[in-house]
Amino acid sequence: MADVAVLGASGFAGALAARLIDRHPFFALEAVTSRSDAGRRLDELYPHHRVDLVLDAYDADELGAIDAAIVAYPHGAAAEVVAELHERGVKVVDLSADFRLRDVATYEATYVEHPHPELISEAVYGLPERYRDEIAQASIVACPGCFPTAAVLALGPLEAEHVVIDAKTGVSGAGRQATETTHFVSVDENVKAYGVGTHRHTPEIEQELGTRVTFVPHLLPLDQGELLTCYFDTGEDVAARLAEAYADEPFIELVDRPPGVRDVRETNFCRIHAHQDGDRAIVFAAIDNLWKGTASQAVQNLNLMFGRPETEGLL
Amino acid sequence: MADVAVLGASGFAGALAARLIDRHPFFALEAVTSRSDAGRRLDELYPHHRVDLVLDAYDADELGAIDAAIVAYPHGAAAEVVAELHERGVKVVDLSADFRLRDVATYEATYVEHPHPELISEAVYGLPERYRDEIAQASIVACPGCFPTAAVLALGPLEAEHVVIDAKTGVSGAGRQATETTHFVSVDENVKAYGVGTHRHTPEIEQELGTRVTFVPHLLPLDQGELLTCYFDTGEDVAARLAEAYADEPFIELVDRPPGVRDVRETNFCRIHAHQDGDRAIVFAAIDNLWKGTASQAVQNLNLMFGRPETEGLL
Amino acid sequence: MADVAVLGASGFAGALAARLIDRHPFFALEAVTSRSDAGRRLDELYPHHRVDLVLDAYDADELGAIDAAIVAYPHGAAAEVVAELHERGVKVVDLSADFRLRDVATYEATYVEHPHPELISEAVYGLPERYRDEIAQASIVACPGCFPTAAVLALGPLEAEHVVIDAKTGVSGAGRQATETTHFVSVDENVKAYGVGTHRHTPEIEQELGTRVTFVPHLLPLDQGELLTCYFDTGEDVAARLAEAYADEPFIELVDRPPGVRDVRETNFCRIHAHQDGDRAIVFAAIDNLWKGTASQAVQNLNLMFGRPETEGLL
Amino acid sequence: MADVAVLGASGFAGALAARLIDRHPFFALEAVTSRSDAGRRLDELYPHHRVDLVLDAYDADELGAIDAAIVAYPHGAAAEVVAELHERGVKVVDLSADFRLRDVATYEATYVEHPHPELISEAVYGLPERYRDEIAQASIVACPGCFPTAAVLALGPLEAEHVVIDAKTGVSGAGRQATETTHFVSVDENVKAYGVGTHRHTPEIEQELGTRVTFVPHLLPLDQGELLTCYFDTGEDVAARLAEAYADEPFIELVDRPPGVRDVRETNFCRIHAHQDGDRAIVFAAIDNLWKGTASQAVQNLNLMFGRPETEGLL
Repeated sequence: MADVAVLGASGFAGALAARLIDRHPFFALEAVTSRSDAGRRLDELYPHHRVDLVLDAYDADELGAIDAAIVAYPHGAAAEVVAELHERGVKVVDLSADFRLRDVATYEATYVEHPHPELISEAVYGLPERYRDEIAQASIVACPGCFPTAAVLALGPLEAEHVVIDAKTGVSGAGRQATETTHFVSVDENVKAYGVGTHRHTPEIEQELGTRVTFVPHLLPLDQGELLTCYFDTGEDVAARLAEAYADEPFIELVDRPPGVRDVRETNFCRIHAHQDGDRAIVFAAIDNLWKGTASQAVQNLNLMFGRPETEGLL
Repeated sequence: MADVAVLGASGFAGALAARLIDRHPFFALEAVTSRSDAGRRLDELYPHHRVDLVLDAYDADELGAIDAAIVAYPHGAAAEVVAELHERGVKVVDLSADFRLRDVATYEATYVEHPHPELISEAVYGLPERYRDEIAQASIVACPGCFPTAAVLALGPLEAEHVVIDAKTGVSGAGRQATETTHFVSVDENVKAYGVGTHRHTPEIEQELGTRVTFVPHLLPLDQGELLTCYFDTGEDVAARLAEAYADEPFIELVDRPPGVRDVRETNFCRIHAHQDGDRAIVFAAIDNLWKGTASQAVQNLNLMFGRPETEGLL
Repeated sequence: MADVAVLGASGFAGALAARLIDRHPFFALEAVTSRSDAGRRLDELYPHHRVDLVLDAYDADELGAIDAAIVAYPHGAAAEVVAELHERGVKVVDLSADFRLRDVATYEATYVEHPHPELISEAVYGLPERYRDEIAQASIVACPGCFPTAAVLALGPLEAEHVVIDAKTGVSGAGRQATETTHFVSVDENVKAYGVGTHRHTPEIEQELGTRVTFVPHLLPLDQGELLTCYFDTGEDVAARLAEAYADEPFIELVDRPPGVRDVRETNFCRIHAHQDGDRAIVFAAIDNLWKGTASQAVQNLNLMFGRPETEGLL
Repeated sequence: MADVAVLGASGFAGALAARLIDRHPFFALEAVTSRSDAGRRLDELYPHHRVDLVLDAYDADELGAIDAAIVAYPHGAAAEVVAELHERGVKVVDLSADFRLRDVATYEATYVEHPHPELISEAVYGLPERYRDEIAQASIVACPGCFPTAAVLALGPLEAEHVVIDAKTGVSGAGRQATETTHFVSVDENVKAYGVGTHRHTPEIEQELGTRVTFVPHLLPLDQGELLTCYFDTGEDVAARLAEAYADEPFIELVDRPPGVRDVRETNFCRIHAHQDGDRAIVFAAIDNLWKGTASQAVQNLNLMFGRPETEGLL
């Protein structure tokens, strides 16, 4: 058994991570913390998760006995906590963007001044299908963004040029905060692009794919789920190449028709379909943004970091 | 032509009232005001209404030339503005609760201290199907709440005892404010009762029906629409009594099957169906909470107050 | 281990039952059958269930080796299959209405001529919270309807008179068949009552409660979930009585605020809240209509019939 | 006044066309016909349209006195009726694909054998923003498909190469027929591509744009609304070019942010936004698929054909 804390468990992703750890055969959920909701019961905020714990304020000293932590803080704030826990020998999976970008200048152009640039080289990009061995050895894992997860799974194994990624996502990706954007009446019976030309996941996708991409996310009237439609030029047989790359992957499902996000709802699966017409190809990738896009992928990473079966607690 | 201002036009109800006045053959939309969004364009906040005006801060002196106003302020704040406009001879339709309850003690037990109790007796309860003649003579009309509108239309003409009103409403009824309650993820795939035993529309319904009611509203994953299922004991033939009462009403539709809220979406109609089994009866009433439940009913009242055809601008 | 077949696994309820059995620690899913979709893969019809089996045509002889069956056939057709399996010594949980009503005349007035009235007395009504011991000994269990499940859990332990049950349900309750009623455009942004005065679950509720009820279901724009708002007169302390009745129940959650159906989505829980004002009381009960309302309750029954822990495979 | 019949008025598009004609200041709705629902009242099928007519079976002889017809039949069947009415001197707006493609071979490769190829050259492609003058003279107008409407409005005035059109549409586009695709439970909480590489609107888009396009539609959980995200290479200033092209168009709204489909719901407007980064550009176009995408565009065409103000009955 290993003891795990989830920091920032009052948000959608942190709360789900807490639930997954709480029911995991190997990990024990030792503590959940929240900056905004300390003192409240987690099962009052998220009845359906049925995690019977009270949210604490974060205090590194009181968390000393834990073996690992999942950090679900906003960027900038996350790095501070990650550094503190790393110092104490705690293995960390960070859900923020703070350790995803290897180039600190790109990070700072995209987000804020980096509080701990010296730790960037310690961190491994937490996409198991790509960095499985490095993750197993890592003490800091930077869990990918939800869009980069699907984009890199769809296109990572491929030669692709002139890449357009049209993304469709549910509202949980916008977080728990109540805003005009997340108001029911704004979303219902609507679909709209956002972050056009400026979305922060673009540099992360480009880092992993090694090519420039046009990336446009759209907000849809559904709670969980993310579909990427990737258009590109290529010289290879896309379906064959994906079949080869993902032959042994437990969480990648190659299918013979366009996937719907319902097919992967509340799972760690990524479902992929390729369509090709000569040198023009389309790859569809569907994930649950809160699961494979965030919280269950964090657990997949933790499984690897502790030498557990990769699928433990996730099927 | 008569010049109309809409005060508090940045909320859902006020914005819709502005749109309805803007396209009305007789009324001209002179000004729209907002306490929170002064300086913003109304068609930026509500593109689909296509009202090409900038929201002003409210200033009674600058509004002096208007003939009428629709006031869409929160309770308490509304009465202040209504008094000021009434003083200047402006006819007012007030969408708040401030002048709906004839008993000031009931008002103050339900809401706040009443800033202008002396005006309560001036105001007419703005349900045209019940107070048509009084409205035509009124200088202050208190537009009914959305639930009371449907409840009184359903049950007003009837003898009913042991009344249970189970209400289902869309999210626009909760207003434009972004809260945990109106967050898409809270509402989507959900249904939940709220305000059980404490909802402020209960005394208003009881005032008009003259009997005690059990009233429970439920929040549904839809934007506009309200359905009331009213259960009661009665000694009369309910369908016959409703048919008689509403024979000449332009906005009441008696139908032979349970109505859906889609049937009345974006209209001023109230659709009613009665089902009876001996002395137990059920009456269903469907309205659009923002239209007949608020903004279009305000225009119906204004039509009466200015001697216009009651349906003008509403069909 | 016990071998189980699910008959009628191409419908929503049968497919979910198949998934739950497929992942159950004690039961093994031996076969899935379908009258309409024999030859198709179950994971093609229901990708998210990930049950890797082909639907067979039903043939009792080929199913001889099974220990138990869950039958998800329409009423009338179900009784034929139940009789055949019962004859062969197979334990059966029947999801249809065929063995729920103890009075054959009531059954035949509500449904069709009963093909096997002689088996009615063999069957136990499969609400574990009410008939736990009898279920453990039964060879035929009649799984309750979704509305009766919630209604009897809400009101079964109580003295209640003048009962009104206002039910709200998601669309999966209407089944997999594509009809005008289940068309997305009919349901979206709508809410409507159906089966007023004629719903077939009424006699089932009345049988278990021993009193006449007014029951009206409403269709809502959500897929899974069912909320019952039960209004009644009573002379007892409702909350205290429920607390006593359900003190040791693993799947009943008594809560201090009105439950939402999201709280119990994809679980076997029933969440109940009581509100009382003198002798008038309201009890809210929320379940997932496909889970506690049908398929997971079937598994709860099977657990009891095979002497397994009641919660096995259901938490 | 001119007398108009709507043929095939029991479908979503035909029913809406009937409503728009019914309330039009110049046109009178003489008859509505239906092959599947003759004898039923239109306001029973579509209560919210409030068109007080009974659907007739189609009989050209009985329709002899009409001046114009809107034909909402499936492809193939439409051409037969169009020919018959044309023969009688009735002006026709055809909502089907039968007269949209100028090349009969392309039509027959995409649809079926063309029953009246001799009439193709008589027909004008009914996109007023592109063929206004020709439409005014036409006796047969082929109303564009919903996707081509938005695509050609977005890209028609531009030089564009390497075009990708990612379309998102509501369910009403799939028609009134109840199928697995239109079942609420299939659509709700889902998003999925369909018709990849085979959608019949592709040749129509390519005909009008004069270039090959990659076109992929996606089905979304909303009833009405269509958003096209168009990615392409260009050498010109896209926003400037669109501003010039659409300076005087009454139904084109160029906006400075990505449009949502809510902005144009239940209107004849097309809202367009351009984003450009060097030679890579993105144009967003939002319409209501049943309005500008079908029925209200039909009325816009009729207005032109009868020399009426183009916006009459549409604002």
